[in-house]
Amino acid sequence: MLQKIKYGMVGGGEGAFIGDIHRIASRIDNRFELVAGALSSNPERAARSAENIGIDAARSYASFEQMASAEKNREDGIDAVVIVTPNHMHFPVAKAFLEQGIAVICDKPATLDLEQAQTLAKIIRDNNSFFRLTHNYTGYPLVRYARELVQEGVLGSIRLVQVEYAQDWLSSKEEDTDNKQAKWRTDPSKSGAGGSLGDIGTHAFNLAQFMSNLSVQEVCADIDAFVDGRVLDDNAHVMLRFNNGAKGTLWCSQVAPGNANALKIRIYGDKAGLEWAQEDPNELWLSPLGEPTQKIIRAGHTVTEVANRICRTPAGHPEGYLEGFANLYRDIADALLLHKAGKPIPAHLQLVPGIDEGVAGLAFVESVVASSKANSQWVALND
Amino acid sequence: MLQKIKYGMVGGGEGAFIGDIHRIASRIDNRFELVAGALSSNPERAARSAENIGIDAARSYASFEQMASAEKNREDGIDAVVIVTPNHMHFPVAKAFLEQGIAVICDKPATLDLEQAQTLAKIIRDNNSFFRLTHNYTGYPLVRYARELVQEGVLGSIRLVQVEYAQDWLSSKEEDTDNKQAKWRTDPSKSGAGGSLGDIGTHAFNLAQFMSNLSVQEVCADIDAFVDGRVLDDNAHVMLRFNNGAKGTLWCSQVAPGNANALKIRIYGDKAGLEWAQEDPNELWLSPLGEPTQKIIRAGHTVTEVANRICRTPAGHPEGYLEGFANLYRDIADALLLHKAGKPIPAHLQLVPGIDEGVAGLAFVESVVASSKANSQWVALND
Amino acid sequence: MLQKIKYGMVGGGEGAFIGDIHRIASRIDNRFELVAGALSSNPERAARSAENIGIDAARSYASFEQMASAEKNREDGIDAVVIVTPNHMHFPVAKAFLEQGIAVICDKPATLDLEQAQTLAKIIRDNNSFFRLTHNYTGYPLVRYARELVQEGVLGSIRLVQVEYAQDWLSSKEEDTDNKQAKWRTDPSKSGAGGSLGDIGTHAFNLAQFMSNLSVQEVCADIDAFVDGRVLDDNAHVMLRFNNGAKGTLWCSQVAPGNANALKIRIYGDKAGLEWAQEDPNELWLSPLGEPTQKIIRAGHTVTEVANRICRTPAGHPEGYLEGFANLYRDIADALLLHKAGKPIPAHLQLVPGIDEGVAGLAFVESVVASSKANSQWVALND
Amino acid sequence: MLQKIKYGMVGGGEGAFIGDIHRIASRIDNRFELVAGALSSNPERAARSAENIGIDAARSYASFEQMASAEKNREDGIDAVVIVTPNHMHFPVAKAFLEQGIAVICDKPATLDLEQAQTLAKIIRDNNSFFRLTHNYTGYPLVRYARELVQEGVLGSIRLVQVEYAQDWLSSKEEDTDNKQAKWRTDPSKSGAGGSLGDIGTHAFNLAQFMSNLSVQEVCADIDAFVDGRVLDDNAHVMLRFNNGAKGTLWCSQVAPGNANALKIRIYGDKAGLEWAQEDPNELWLSPLGEPTQKIIRAGHTVTEVANRICRTPAGHPEGYLEGFANLYRDIADALLLHKAGKPIPAHLQLVPGIDEGVAGLAFVESVVASSKANSQWVALND
Repeated sequence: MLQKIKYGMVGGGEGAFIGDIHRIASRIDNRFELVAGALSSNPERAARSAENIGIDAARSYASFEQMASAEKNREDGIDAVVIVTPNHMHFPVAKAFLEQGIAVICDKPATLDLEQAQTLAKIIRDNNSFFRLTHNYTGYPLVRYARELVQEGVLGSIRLVQVEYAQDWLSSKEEDTDNKQAKWRTDPSKSGAGGSLGDIGTHAFNLAQFMSNLSVQEVCADIDAFVDGRVLDDNAHVMLRFNNGAKGTLWCSQVAPGNANALKIRIYGDKAGLEWAQEDPNELWLSPLGEPTQKIIRAGHTVTEVANRICRTPAGHPEGYLEGFANLYRDIADALLLHKAGKPIPAHLQLVPGIDEGVAGLAFVESVVASSKANSQWVALND
Repeated sequence: MLQKIKYGMVGGGEGAFIGDIHRIASRIDNRFELVAGALSSNPERAARSAENIGIDAARSYASFEQMASAEKNREDGIDAVVIVTPNHMHFPVAKAFLEQGIAVICDKPATLDLEQAQTLAKIIRDNNSFFRLTHNYTGYPLVRYARELVQEGVLGSIRLVQVEYAQDWLSSKEEDTDNKQAKWRTDPSKSGAGGSLGDIGTHAFNLAQFMSNLSVQEVCADIDAFVDGRVLDDNAHVMLRFNNGAKGTLWCSQVAPGNANALKIRIYGDKAGLEWAQEDPNELWLSPLGEPTQKIIRAGHTVTEVANRICRTPAGHPEGYLEGFANLYRDIADALLLHKAGKPIPAHLQLVPGIDEGVAGLAFVESVVASSKANSQWVALND
Repeated sequence: MLQKIKYGMVGGGEGAFIGDIHRIASRIDNRFELVAGALSSNPERAARSAENIGIDAARSYASFEQMASAEKNREDGIDAVVIVTPNHMHFPVAKAFLEQGIAVICDKPATLDLEQAQTLAKIIRDNNSFFRLTHNYTGYPLVRYARELVQEGVLGSIRLVQVEYAQDWLSSKEEDTDNKQAKWRTDPSKSGAGGSLGDIGTHAFNLAQFMSNLSVQEVCADIDAFVDGRVLDDNAHVMLRFNNGAKGTLWCSQVAPGNANALKIRIYGDKAGLEWAQEDPNELWLSPLGEPTQKIIRAGHTVTEVANRICRTPAGHPEGYLEGFANLYRDIADALLLHKAGKPIPAHLQLVPGIDEGVAGLAFVESVVASSKANSQWVALND
Repeated sequence: MLQKIKYGMVGGGEGAFIGDIHRIASRIDNRFELVAGALSSNPERAARSAENIGIDAARSYASFEQMASAEKNREDGIDAVVIVTPNHMHFPVAKAFLEQGIAVICDKPATLDLEQAQTLAKIIRDNNSFFRLTHNYTGYPLVRYARELVQEGVLGSIRLVQVEYAQDWLSSKEEDTDNKQAKWRTDPSKSGAGGSLGDIGTHAFNLAQFMSNLSVQEVCADIDAFVDGRVLDDNAHVMLRFNNGAKGTLWCSQVAPGNANALKIRIYGDKAGLEWAQEDPNELWLSPLGEPTQKIIRAGHTVTEVANRICRTPAGHPEGYLEGFANLYRDIADALLLHKAGKPIPAHLQLVPGIDEGVAGLAFVESVVASSKANSQWVALND
């Protein structure tokens, strides 16, 4: 049996959303064991949450600083920490654990702002630390297969990347209700310079670069807060220019009624086009120019190792969001064991985003905000 | 039986595409009779084409000028002319017939450039002429129903309009083959300042304004000719600002493999969102905030008079492109009879676009081109 | 210009549904001219209907018998009659016109019962008469293309044919309202032994045989009238055995809420499967075993002459029910001209169903009813 | 933290399919711990498999009999056994563990034949044993919601149930390759009287009864083995009669190219219809008669506690096959703890199928086979 990774969690206590997602994702392939936590900044809630999810009281900490040093000093201390706090805590928590030599698995965006991200990147580089950023949509098998199709030239030279991520849950002033998620995500002190941009725009941006194998060089944007009294954007329109001359648009919105979690990407080259939508993740549509569009299915006949390696069920037995997320955890487990052993990490385990993608994400947010403030001037992504 | 409109056609001879579409559309409801033509600038082809489609040789003309004066002088002369030439001929032909007091039904865009369109608008205004522009997508029943839903406030205050029109037929250098359609549509002298912009972008623009009941005030654009050696754009990304503060994007492309004629629009307000796609024109998706999305079908239970009036088949018996086109012809027939009788034209017959929409379309093309040349500065649509 | 067919119509006056459909379909390609009619058994309504649709009063007849003899005696008499009455009138009307040497275009089912159909078949054979039955779904381009794919062996040996035709408009006792269509279609004296079976089951049956190139040999059925007080079936479940050993099911229903006109067919062979649905007629799904499913589109790249010949618009510009219907009329025009000239009719003009398909349809209805009465014994289709 | 269930597994060693599915499903909610196993009838493979998945060598057994008695005698012995062997072993294994007072979680079908199922039912009844059958499709949230809609009368009186389950993986003689799954599933000694019937038909049958709240009383069937040399059916057509007078069809097939795991159900009542497909499990389509069809989404606004209780992710974050399966495990954990404590099990934990559904499934298989042998006579389901 493969060795299990012992980990702790910061954030993710009662009322949180993404903490439970990480815990399930980490369990699916039985490669992780949750043994410690600083689940809430409220000590009482932290303790109660820890008990509820089966963390030993002795390893439920009142603060992340405590946890970092205590775990560092235990013989059976954690191998990794998972950070699932609001954005503003990502940097201090990551820094604290990295300084103790503990690997970090962090929810996106990497930090509150670009400067923090760059600082974090330097820390990681200087210490050869292990850091992974859970842009979970890169874990879907057909997303990786699509990336491979592009790499292999099936689409020819890429001309266009159209990506969008639409939701509707902030169409009204949800932050004035007792919805915790809405509260912190619309609060610049906790969320950063971007509202929808940071929350979902960074996912769309990451997916566009991941799948197209290209990088965005400039953005031209017009962002809005449509709901009265909201400070951060709830909608962003962004035009994109890529390094190879390709063009694109990125649209993210949390005020588009009828859209639950509609992340969708289309890539067009001179030989073929492809289309993938997160809400139907088991299908990929490939359109070679001049031929019928093909419906490629997860674990189907033409899908290759890059995707099949991370499938658990046969074609037609749908996998979803949690399995995609779990694929990151599986790769992280393998990579972390190699990292701890001082061995090189092979390419197929390097598909999980890290601090470079984190820096790029923050650069994206800040460039978009800057462009919009400058009445939509093109702004370079200097990361 | 309702009186038939006698009409002639300019353009639409052998090898043309849209001429035959207009002829079929005009026949579907039996309200038009084609009796004259100047079907080609090549006299021999004009004569042969006329014979093939059953126009009396005596009324097959070698030039549109000849036709305009000859028909004007016949007692049984045409009531209307249909112009289906390449764009550069729209203005001179329309002018010639309008000057003879003959009504004009013109394919889009109205003219080659904005200046011509404005001149034409003045002629029409000054003479109280009858002019209709066949932005045929406004003829789909569910497009009109969607417009009504917006007008009635079902969507609340409109925040977003996302419109796109993607094709793939110009992904390669099609204009170097013997494809006539490709040749003139990529030639600025015949097509105007816009390539995909003029050909399909104007349809998307018109649909966005028609369905949202809003008008675009500014555009910020980045346009490209991706195919080597092509002069006019084959792709355009445009950000939109509307008169009420709504925002949007318009994407048109003729280099997106897998897209045949993928015109699609989504409109989001603070109460509901809606979505319609031309390739599935018998369905409209309405998403009231906080309720399940509804699949509204043409001629279905909730659809009202504005759409049902122009349906010929019951729900589930699909109507398509030709029927949508025919709806314009039907309304034009009714409106033209009233116009000739000097009677007022009721609102429900004024949904067919006219010269105002034509001027707006050219203003859109020229503003987008200007914005793109200015590295995507916002440019106002001063029409 | 190709010669036009002069025709008259029996039935199809005010309040009728299918008469107007036939008239539009006949106009689309400009090959027919409607010049006579006995549009209603009510003389006043017949006259008024004739005037409304532009038939000369002199050729609006009070009875079909009058019309048959009068038209026979005119030098410019009609070439063909279109029969769009309720089913019980099909036989006498067809007989009357055939006896005058006038070609017959008849809506389905051919007659009220199998005996009539066989008698009619004999008359047609004995006199080498021209008779076409408007099973209009065979006119869809992709239906014909699918048939060709089967003929060419792309599916291999056919094992399964699953066909269904679901509607919901008779879910309540619609025949007790003033809905004329519901009244006669639920009345055995006008509709025959089948309710949903005759109205839509015959279409499904015809399509299954047409597309699979097979014939049904036995049926095993369980039919129901779910609505209280209804005499004829509003739902039928039928198991099928085909001549080559293939099996299948046919389900037709008019009490399935949410279904407007949901005719759908799936055919599976040992090499591939295919699927087509009438409500999305511009798409055909082909699944070669072990390869991705292909979305084949009307007028798309791989579609061949058999379908493209009958397309009027390019891919992505949807054609619908009326165009499919019009394809029958176009082929009938060509075939009738050849028939009148005593020339052979080529294979590609023989795809329109005739009396053989009519006899088969009635044999199907009567066998299904017999099987159901015998508690679902297998009954052979002895036509 | 809730108490974990300690369990062992019989079957599910190397090369198996469903064993791993059960293990993942049991882990997702962290309510189970796998501590023992008799993973293969081959002792060497059993030991190796146990090691690979982290079962202590001391609790990896060479036979299920050994395991049953050894675990019974341990103080920390298993609470439950999961049976994931081929069908012919279900009965002896279940019996052995039940006799030791150990709860049984068994893959479907319950046993090899109806007689065994009835015997097992008696054992369970007589001993008040705990037995659950993993008809996993009942674990999908929207399946349970649909069942509730039916129960609450939203569909009115049910008239029709159309269920189908199509696959293509046995379109060729797969059992002649080294595909273990194909081998035993086509072997009557291991699979029972049904091929596709037992493998997938029982799922379809169970789903039809579960969702409609009805029971099938009679079947009329025609089954086939289309692949040369195959003994068991690979396709079955079945007409259904329900206890309330509703009718239906069940089609299952493993020779339908293009179908991966296409389980789909449609239920029609006199007030509304609904439709659900396993390959798109996050959507349920509800069609109230005379209103637009509604797209109901998992965890969406109108979905109630019966479904939301078993959702782990918000709307738009797709859950799939494994989460549906895990929902059974979660309910089983709660129910088993109550059972062990001698407390009553509330209704919402009784949705997981048990031996009654197992008996019904075998009765279905045997009745269908009997009907088909009798040339499709109606056969009652005497269970």
